[in-house]
Amino acid sequence: MRDVAVVGVGMQKWGELWEKDLRDLYVESALLAINDAGVDRIDSMYVGCMTSGLFNSQEHLGSIMADYLGLTPIPATRVESACASAGIAVRMGFMEVAGGFSDIVLAGGVEKMTDVSGDGATFALATACDQEWEAYNGVTFPGLYAMMARAHMHQYGTTREQLAMVAVKNHENGMKNPLAQYHVKITVEDVINSVKVAEPLNIFDCSPITDGAAAVVLTTVEKAKELGKPIIKIIGIGQATSTIALHSRADLASIDATRYAAETAYKMAGKGPDDIDLAEVHDCFTIAELIVMEELGFVERGKSGPAVEAGETRIGGRIPINTSGGLKSKGHPVGATGAAQVYSLVEQLRGEAGERQVEGAKVGLAQNMGGSGGSSVVTILEAQS
Amino acid sequence: MRDVAVVGVGMQKWGELWEKDLRDLYVESALLAINDAGVDRIDSMYVGCMTSGLFNSQEHLGSIMADYLGLTPIPATRVESACASAGIAVRMGFMEVAGGFSDIVLAGGVEKMTDVSGDGATFALATACDQEWEAYNGVTFPGLYAMMARAHMHQYGTTREQLAMVAVKNHENGMKNPLAQYHVKITVEDVINSVKVAEPLNIFDCSPITDGAAAVVLTTVEKAKELGKPIIKIIGIGQATSTIALHSRADLASIDATRYAAETAYKMAGKGPDDIDLAEVHDCFTIAELIVMEELGFVERGKSGPAVEAGETRIGGRIPINTSGGLKSKGHPVGATGAAQVYSLVEQLRGEAGERQVEGAKVGLAQNMGGSGGSSVVTILEAQS
Repeated sequence: MRDVAVVGVGMQKWGELWEKDLRDLYVESALLAINDAGVDRIDSMYVGCMTSGLFNSQEHLGSIMADYLGLTPIPATRVESACASAGIAVRMGFMEVAGGFSDIVLAGGVEKMTDVSGDGATFALATACDQEWEAYNGVTFPGLYAMMARAHMHQYGTTREQLAMVAVKNHENGMKNPLAQYHVKITVEDVINSVKVAEPLNIFDCSPITDGAAAVVLTTVEKAKELGKPIIKIIGIGQATSTIALHSRADLASIDATRYAAETAYKMAGKGPDDIDLAEVHDCFTIAELIVMEELGFVERGKSGPAVEAGETRIGGRIPINTSGGLKSKGHPVGATGAAQVYSLVEQLRGEAGERQVEGAKVGLAQNMGGSGGSSVVTILEAQS
Repeated sequence: MRDVAVVGVGMQKWGELWEKDLRDLYVESALLAINDAGVDRIDSMYVGCMTSGLFNSQEHLGSIMADYLGLTPIPATRVESACASAGIAVRMGFMEVAGGFSDIVLAGGVEKMTDVSGDGATFALATACDQEWEAYNGVTFPGLYAMMARAHMHQYGTTREQLAMVAVKNHENGMKNPLAQYHVKITVEDVINSVKVAEPLNIFDCSPITDGAAAVVLTTVEKAKELGKPIIKIIGIGQATSTIALHSRADLASIDATRYAAETAYKMAGKGPDDIDLAEVHDCFTIAELIVMEELGFVERGKSGPAVEAGETRIGGRIPINTSGGLKSKGHPVGATGAAQVYSLVEQLRGEAGERQVEGAKVGLAQNMGGSGGSSVVTILEAQS
C-alpha cells in the first residue's frame, strides 16, 4: 500500500451564498485545492454530498462536477453518508491512491442548503435518520440529539452550562477564522437564554444551515515531495457504521460508529488518543462534541463536560478541539463538512492557522459523522519533515 | 493488485413491489448474494442508489442497509451516479478488494421507484440531467434520448423499425427470465403503434419504472477458490464521465463516457470487442442500446441498426446483447441496474442461464450509464477454470 499525502486544500468563505449555486461551490473549492497542490492533472475525483436531490433537484454530481471543472472523462463518483459524506469521499480518495489505482485524486464535498424554503431544510436533513421509524413519527435531528443530551446529563451529571461552553469555545475560535460563517462572540448566558429548539438544546447549541464546499487533493508521499509541498500524510483512516435509528442503541449517550472508526484509524496510525495534538470533531450539536471526545478516548467516559469546563479543549489547552470554529461557528453544509475538517487540520499542520495556530502541532485528527451517528469516519494526519 | 472474483450474486423478481420498502429490497438481494457466495462475513459494503431522497425521503443508505443486514459496524458507503450507481458500487468494491483494504465486499444497488405519485418519478429521474440548463427548461429523459435518436437516424439512416427491433429482442429474452418485470412478447408493429412519448420514441422504446435491487459479493480469486465457487474474475473495469448536458456534446449520436470507460476496461483486460461473448448494456431507451453497441466497438459507427436487424445481437447471434431482457423487459430500478447486469453475466458465465444460455460463454461485458451518458462504467468478466 502506498503512502498518501494531502497536497492541496481549498474552501471558500461559508455562509448564505445566494449568488452561488451547487456547482459553483464545489468547482470553486476544487480549483482552490488544485491550485494549492500545484498539480497539472487530476486522475479521479469524489464528490461528497448528502441530499442535492432534495435541496437542489440535482443528482449525478460526479458527472456535473467533472464537467464544470473541465475534467471529463476522468472517473467521478458521488458518495453519500449524510453529514459524513465528505469524510468518506476523502477515504475513497485515500484508497484509490494507496491502492495504486490513481496517482492524483480530488476529494471534496458540497451542500447548497438555502435553496429550499419553509421547513424544507429540516425535512431534507431528516432523511439522514430512519424515515419510517423516526422521521415519520415527527422526530427531527435536534430532537434526537436532545435525547442524547438528556441521557448524558442523566448518566454522567453533565450540566447545561457545560453544553453551552462547547458553543462558546467554538464561536471564540470561529471569530478568528476568516472562512467561518459566523464571527460572533457568544457567552454561556447567550446560549442558555437563546431560543429553545428541543430541550435541553437551544438554537446556539445547534450548527446552522450553510452553503459551502471544501476539497482536498491527495497523492502519494513521493509525488508530494516532487511537488515541493509540505508532507501532510494520512497515517490512519477508519470508517464504521452503527444503527441508523437512535432507539436501537444500547446506550443513547454513546456513538459506537465513531469509536469503531477511531479504533481502525488509531491502529493503522500506530498511535493513540494521547498522540493527537488537535482535533476537528463533528459538533452538529454541542452534545455531539462531548460524546465524541469520549469515543475518541480524549477523556474518560462521562468526563467530557468537566474537561470542556476546565478549558482542556481550548487553543492552548491539553487537546484543542475545533480550532476552526467547528460546525457551530464555521458552518455546516452537511456534505462538505468532512473535507473542511481536513482543510482545517492541514492549515494547522502546515503552521498556517494564524491566530488560531496550535503551537507545535504535528498530529491532527478529524472525526466526521452522519445522522445521529449511524456512520462515522476518523482520519489522522501527520506533518512529516 | 490482487485478482478479484464475483463469488455471489442475488436479486429478487423485479416489478411494482408494493409490499416491499427500500430497505427490504436491498437486504433481500444482499442476503441472496451472501448465501450464494457462502461467505460467513462481509468486511465492507457499497449501496448504489440514484435518488432515494426524492423517491423515499431516505438518505444515509450505508448506515440503514448495514443496520438492517446486521452488519454494523462495517464500513458502508452509498454511491450515486444516477442510473450508473450500482455499476460504480461494483467498481468501488473491486478497488477495495484489489487494493487489499478488504477481503470480502458486498456491492449492490437499489431503487424503490413506485412510492411517488403523479409526475414524481419523471421529476426524480430528471435530476440526472443538468437541472438548471435542461430539466428547468422542460426536457425529460425521453426527450433527451429522442434527440439522440433523431441525430442517429439523420446521420446514419437508422430506421424506426431498427429501434423497435431492440425492444422486441429484449422482450423476447426477458420472457425467459423469471426475474424480469415483464413477460410479454411484443412485435415491431406493437412498438411502432404504441403511445408516443417523445418522437421518435414510443412507450415500448422506454424502460419502465421498477422497484428492485441486486447485489454481488466480491473477493480475491484465491478466496473464491477456497470457497469452492466457480471463478468469475473481473478482468477489466473502467469508469468515465462526459458532459452532463446533451447540448454540450460535439455529437448527439455518441456517448463518449462509455467509449472511454470501455477503453480502460479493454486495456486492463488485454481484450478487445471481438473477445466478448455476450454483453449486458444500458438500454434505458432503444436508441441507447444502438449507440452503446458502437461505443463498445461491437459494430462500426452507424452500423448498429443493421446489425440488430440482421439478428447479430440475438441469443445465437454474433454478439448476444441483453440476454436478461435488458432494462426494457427486466425492468430498470435505476440505482440497481448496474449490479443486475453483473448478476446476469455471472449466471451466463456459470452456465446457469437456462433457456437464455449463450453456448460456450466465457467472457461477458456489462455497460452501465447515468443520465444521457454523463457517466459510464464498463466491467468485463471472465469465467476461469
